[in-house]
Amino acid sequence: MQEFLNQYKDELLRKVIPFWMAHSRDDEYGGYLTSLDRDGTVFDTDKWMWLQGREIWTFATLYTKVERRPEWLAMALHGADFIRRFGTDGNGDFYFGLTRDGKPLVQPYNIFSDCFCCMGLVALDAAQPGSGYGAEAKKIFQRILDRRDNPKGKYNKLYPGTRPLKSFSLPMILCNLALEMEPVLGSEYVNRLVRDLAAEIMRDYYKEEFGCVLENVAPDGSFVDSFEGRTLSPGHGIEAMWFLMDIGERLGDTGLIRRAADITLQTLEKGWDREFGGIFYFLDVKGKYPLQLEWDQKLWWVHLESLVACCKGFLHTGDGRLEEWFRQIHGYTWDHFADPEYPEWYGYLSRHGNTLFPFKGGKWKGCFHLPRALLQIWRTLEKM
Amino acid sequence: MQEFLNQYKDELLRKVIPFWMAHSRDDEYGGYLTSLDRDGTVFDTDKWMWLQGREIWTFATLYTKVERRPEWLAMALHGADFIRRFGTDGNGDFYFGLTRDGKPLVQPYNIFSDCFCCMGLVALDAAQPGSGYGAEAKKIFQRILDRRDNPKGKYNKLYPGTRPLKSFSLPMILCNLALEMEPVLGSEYVNRLVRDLAAEIMRDYYKEEFGCVLENVAPDGSFVDSFEGRTLSPGHGIEAMWFLMDIGERLGDTGLIRRAADITLQTLEKGWDREFGGIFYFLDVKGKYPLQLEWDQKLWWVHLESLVACCKGFLHTGDGRLEEWFRQIHGYTWDHFADPEYPEWYGYLSRHGNTLFPFKGGKWKGCFHLPRALLQIWRTLEKM
Repeated sequence: MQEFLNQYKDELLRKVIPFWMAHSRDDEYGGYLTSLDRDGTVFDTDKWMWLQGREIWTFATLYTKVERRPEWLAMALHGADFIRRFGTDGNGDFYFGLTRDGKPLVQPYNIFSDCFCCMGLVALDAAQPGSGYGAEAKKIFQRILDRRDNPKGKYNKLYPGTRPLKSFSLPMILCNLALEMEPVLGSEYVNRLVRDLAAEIMRDYYKEEFGCVLENVAPDGSFVDSFEGRTLSPGHGIEAMWFLMDIGERLGDTGLIRRAADITLQTLEKGWDREFGGIFYFLDVKGKYPLQLEWDQKLWWVHLESLVACCKGFLHTGDGRLEEWFRQIHGYTWDHFADPEYPEWYGYLSRHGNTLFPFKGGKWKGCFHLPRALLQIWRTLEKM
Repeated sequence: MQEFLNQYKDELLRKVIPFWMAHSRDDEYGGYLTSLDRDGTVFDTDKWMWLQGREIWTFATLYTKVERRPEWLAMALHGADFIRRFGTDGNGDFYFGLTRDGKPLVQPYNIFSDCFCCMGLVALDAAQPGSGYGAEAKKIFQRILDRRDNPKGKYNKLYPGTRPLKSFSLPMILCNLALEMEPVLGSEYVNRLVRDLAAEIMRDYYKEEFGCVLENVAPDGSFVDSFEGRTLSPGHGIEAMWFLMDIGERLGDTGLIRRAADITLQTLEKGWDREFGGIFYFLDVKGKYPLQLEWDQKLWWVHLESLVACCKGFLHTGDGRLEEWFRQIHGYTWDHFADPEYPEWYGYLSRHGNTLFPFKGGKWKGCFHLPRALLQIWRTLEKM
């Protein structure tokens, strides 16, 4: 596997990061421009808070984990300054979107803005201890936990009581965020939190009979036979599995790592498109029809997160099936998502593998999954 | 063009309507089951109020406009009874979704539930004068007008004031609904209302520089250069054009009909996929990227509404380009959406024209666009 090491490392340091450094910084109004065309040209200037937070995280993490390059720290601080000035409403909740100059555009209906701004700020605190960003992140984290039972607040359209559902997204992202928060929350607290989250995911969201993790279940974890309850997002489930492997490694829980590796394998078996290659975006776990019209598209992050999970799973378990899957997904991913002409990758392909949009960043794609996965895989391969 | 008449009429009466009569009626809990697989098998039982309203409208309209078959009236009454018992909350707003047995599932965040339930009930009033459904429809219509400035109410995620937008959907649907409401609102009121709506659409939503109608504009009708402001939905725009032709016919406004026919032609030029055939679902009017991942898919209703617009436009103007477009879209539509094995049509194709889902009804497809278009085209061809 080590033959891949330099490919991932070079892609990150020579192509992907320079692309965002060159095109994303908004020197006029602060923060980042993330709607970037194939060659980096800005095609829209709205600012989405969760993508701002993710880009802060990426540059702060490169600074602490890769190399103390002042321009990376400056890039992270540049984003943090913008979200500190304009990001939140009177309750401290993060808007979903702002105009280029920081005017609120879309209300804080989506708690993932808060999650990723929190993650960005705590990573920045590690890069600049004593900057106060850690205390800010801690406050945001507490507010996320407070909103946990009804993260959408008044924007929740479900009628209370008839068919209550809990969504996989929040415990999943908390698994990852909690580990990032260790410097401000302390290891004992974090250990307890991630142990509980891992237990909840395996108990409530993982379903033996389907061999995968579901996107929505009843509050007691039982299966709900509705469109939402039948939804499987293979990429989402597999991404969570490498979060659980990280947690297993931290807690010394090899059983958890083994289970996460097995679920990765089962989900890939279910999610791989045997006709055209690549991993489906959404499936109905009972073989019916997902609600999402884009169900059969191939998305960059789904493939990258799967590569991370296979790589980590292989490191920890030595299971040759994970290496095989890594090689298979690696082939598809580099063939289809990497742009041979300009740096950074395409995000969206049709089922057949044709590029659906040539842009490199948009409302739902920023500076995050690709650099994080390249870094994670590079560092995992180093350990082999 | 008259060679097509029997094809449309027979498809409606011998295949499509019998399909819904056979599979959609829920004798156990009332109302309609609309998530129907390729052969009519029910694959989900949730009930969406806007689809219930649309199916009531279809059967009531067949009864008044085609033939007084008692089973059609009974089918419409069956749906009306269900929405009367379970459809609304304490304010008289229609829930978006209910469980099979009528428990509220999704809050009234979407005013189109109200629009289509109103339309169903007023059509039923014409089928059964004195039934009281007309008075109910009138109340719902008033409530729709009251909510017009903020149809999403508290579920509106846009921050007030920063970049206000008004959406084309509501004036568009009101154009159609107002004509249906004539028996209860009176012709003078309806004439005034539709004249104002037509003027607003042509003044505010139609943009000369793009040659089409936009989905979202500023309250004063100016163009907004954002993802939402750049959105073009060719099918939506063209559907509205045949509503405007109906209004033009009613008001004796041949200028309005001519403009609507021209916009139909311009929108087809923009929306037709020259590479693979069919009409795109969404486009960015400045040639950038629509937000919708499903932008390049081919949807049944887009093609059917375009057939209606071309057919009506040709009847009124005699413009041969509309006949050519009709023939071209007719060919694509019958080749790709009609199912050679079972009655009713597929709803969703990939850009390349492959069936994306084989089902005949789902959360967003019911008993409406296909039967309405078949009826409209049949009746328009009769006049030629």
